[in-house]
Amino acid sequence: MQDFIYYAPTKVYFGKGKENEVGNIITDLGYKTIMMQYGRDSIKKSGLYDRVMASLTNSGIKVIEMGGVEPNPKLSFVREAVKVARENNVEMILAVGGGSVLDSSKVTAAGAKNDCDVWDFILRKETPQDALPVGCILTISAAGSEMSSSSVITDTETNMKRGYNTDFNRCKFAICNPELTYTVSKYQTSCGIVDIMAHTMERYFTVCEPTDLTDRIAESVLKSVITAGKTLLTDPFNYDARANMMWASSLSHNDLTGCGRQNMLPVHQLEHGLSGEFDHISHGAGLAVLFPAWARYVYKAAPERFAQFARRVWDVAETDDEAAALRGIEEMEKFFEFIEMPLKLREFGIDKNSVDKIAELTTFGKSRTISTYIELDYHKVKEILESCF
Amino acid sequence: MQDFIYYAPTKVYFGKGKENEVGNIITDLGYKTIMMQYGRDSIKKSGLYDRVMASLTNSGIKVIEMGGVEPNPKLSFVREAVKVARENNVEMILAVGGGSVLDSSKVTAAGAKNDCDVWDFILRKETPQDALPVGCILTISAAGSEMSSSSVITDTETNMKRGYNTDFNRCKFAICNPELTYTVSKYQTSCGIVDIMAHTMERYFTVCEPTDLTDRIAESVLKSVITAGKTLLTDPFNYDARANMMWASSLSHNDLTGCGRQNMLPVHQLEHGLSGEFDHISHGAGLAVLFPAWARYVYKAAPERFAQFARRVWDVAETDDEAAALRGIEEMEKFFEFIEMPLKLREFGIDKNSVDKIAELTTFGKSRTISTYIELDYHKVKEILESCF
Repeated sequence: MQDFIYYAPTKVYFGKGKENEVGNIITDLGYKTIMMQYGRDSIKKSGLYDRVMASLTNSGIKVIEMGGVEPNPKLSFVREAVKVARENNVEMILAVGGGSVLDSSKVTAAGAKNDCDVWDFILRKETPQDALPVGCILTISAAGSEMSSSSVITDTETNMKRGYNTDFNRCKFAICNPELTYTVSKYQTSCGIVDIMAHTMERYFTVCEPTDLTDRIAESVLKSVITAGKTLLTDPFNYDARANMMWASSLSHNDLTGCGRQNMLPVHQLEHGLSGEFDHISHGAGLAVLFPAWARYVYKAAPERFAQFARRVWDVAETDDEAAALRGIEEMEKFFEFIEMPLKLREFGIDKNSVDKIAELTTFGKSRTISTYIELDYHKVKEILESCF
Repeated sequence: MQDFIYYAPTKVYFGKGKENEVGNIITDLGYKTIMMQYGRDSIKKSGLYDRVMASLTNSGIKVIEMGGVEPNPKLSFVREAVKVARENNVEMILAVGGGSVLDSSKVTAAGAKNDCDVWDFILRKETPQDALPVGCILTISAAGSEMSSSSVITDTETNMKRGYNTDFNRCKFAICNPELTYTVSKYQTSCGIVDIMAHTMERYFTVCEPTDLTDRIAESVLKSVITAGKTLLTDPFNYDARANMMWASSLSHNDLTGCGRQNMLPVHQLEHGLSGEFDHISHGAGLAVLFPAWARYVYKAAPERFAQFARRVWDVAETDDEAAALRGIEEMEKFFEFIEMPLKLREFGIDKNSVDKIAELTTFGKSRTISTYIELDYHKVKEILESCF
């Protein structure tokens, strides 16, 4: 087991109706003026917006609204939000939504407390020295941003989609009511499943000394998500399945599934190149295509690891490691197909001519490689992308 | 899944040599005067004391020492420590040791910041409104106190051993170096194994709606502890096994293994009656005798739950739930025997005449019952104890 620091200080309020407590929670923390970020109209249509506003105003909290966060949240929006937060002396940011709203809120929170431009965090030119606290009301089980240290935003001028990690990105609190995910579409539910699995599997597939407990916890998250995912396909109002998915979302990305292991997210890096270039591609759907392709490209570097995954997660009986490894990847792909995810890039309406551009974005203009088992330079990234057609 | 709050804010520094960073960690938190609690001579013999003091003094930290914490830490010691902490304007408490030192430190930390006597917390007459921060350097994998909200102390005048829970009991940081546990004896290593398993199993065996993910995580902790426990019996210097045990200790009692379930610790309550009366009984050894006895007394109330435990943790193949349940309890007992734990109360040199007194202590003089599956009053507690001879 490698040395590690584990720090997941987010207070999670999990269960039915917990969003109605948000006013009290924020009052107990001592904040009086907050910025509330959210996406488009869905929280208004569902009634969530009204419930949250009622709880906040009943507690006498002044709310500065920043609605309109888009999927793959945009740098320009964050810059505007930072300006508004400063002008209004906002004390904390409440994100009501999913990963995009959360990530936008996190970067805004850091931007409001540091003098530089927020893109400098992304470019590693600056490190946040402080940040406003962020709390959230989660509406989709997917990104795990509610407990993670990460945030990802996109600069639409360059199509660069990129993230940075800091403990300031850890939410102060997360309100997780599984019922709020009842209205998430089948497609987006499946995208969430893949994202949760990817967060778990990318920590699992790293070069490391033995980490028995972490392995078993990761396998537990995967098995539980697979089981719940199958249930939700036909029974989207199954509370326990929605609850398992929501809790798995948080645990998959709060570092628990990677304790003592390397922390690399190679397939996420590939996917950021893809959905950076093609804004219409949902992150989870992109991962569903890329993960099996990446796994087939690298598995020979660690057949015993992929075999353990196959046997413990997918109950593959093969005794030969290489054969088991391949069968495990196949089972993963079959499951993605079962939950109606795309398996090939052409299903997004894009063709092989896009490969150069995606590979270029992924490698930051050929300036970086992506590591785990095999170091992926521009040319190897291209090979993986080409295998997705 | 029941509603729950999950809050585990302790920053864990896990790995080799991390104790040498303690001075920097405390300085970064801004504390200059600390109380250091520890047990008897073992940290001096092992050299740990010197390393910790070197790190603290190099950082210019003033250290008030309170050595001499005993196993089953005593109320009288804590009262004295509170007085010393107040007189010296101590800003935080550093516990260097295991569960006893931690629990003593936690109660001292609350005592120093509240005007009442600390026993009033135990008696529920007062609730801590504040507490000094507590950090720890862990030297044994067992109690899980390094991430838990609990603390247990003993009043030697009445032999009452009792605890209370509060978020103020959550450590600010925990330094966990598995190498520090190399010198833990075989017997105490095994006691720790049972304690970790009990924290996990007592959350597992509760009446609840389905909690698939929590179940699987609990089963993972158990399987990993069993595997590591078998290794340590013959190979006590196996780093990965020691590391798995240490991390399992933290996860077993930071509430992760009980999310969405009831939080009852019936066997711990029985054991507090036992080791409250008989100070020479190690907590884990007491649990090893009591757990199978309790399980056999209640399993018919939830055979399917005990059967799941048997099948998933002990690979029992029985298809009939009741038969599987019994086989699972038997396997647990066999494992305790394998790691050289006692199976009967007489092995502690006590006889059946003690049963009345233990049952009385357990039920606070027949004034409380202990619940989970079957509500245990004084008479039922006696029946369980009698079955341990």
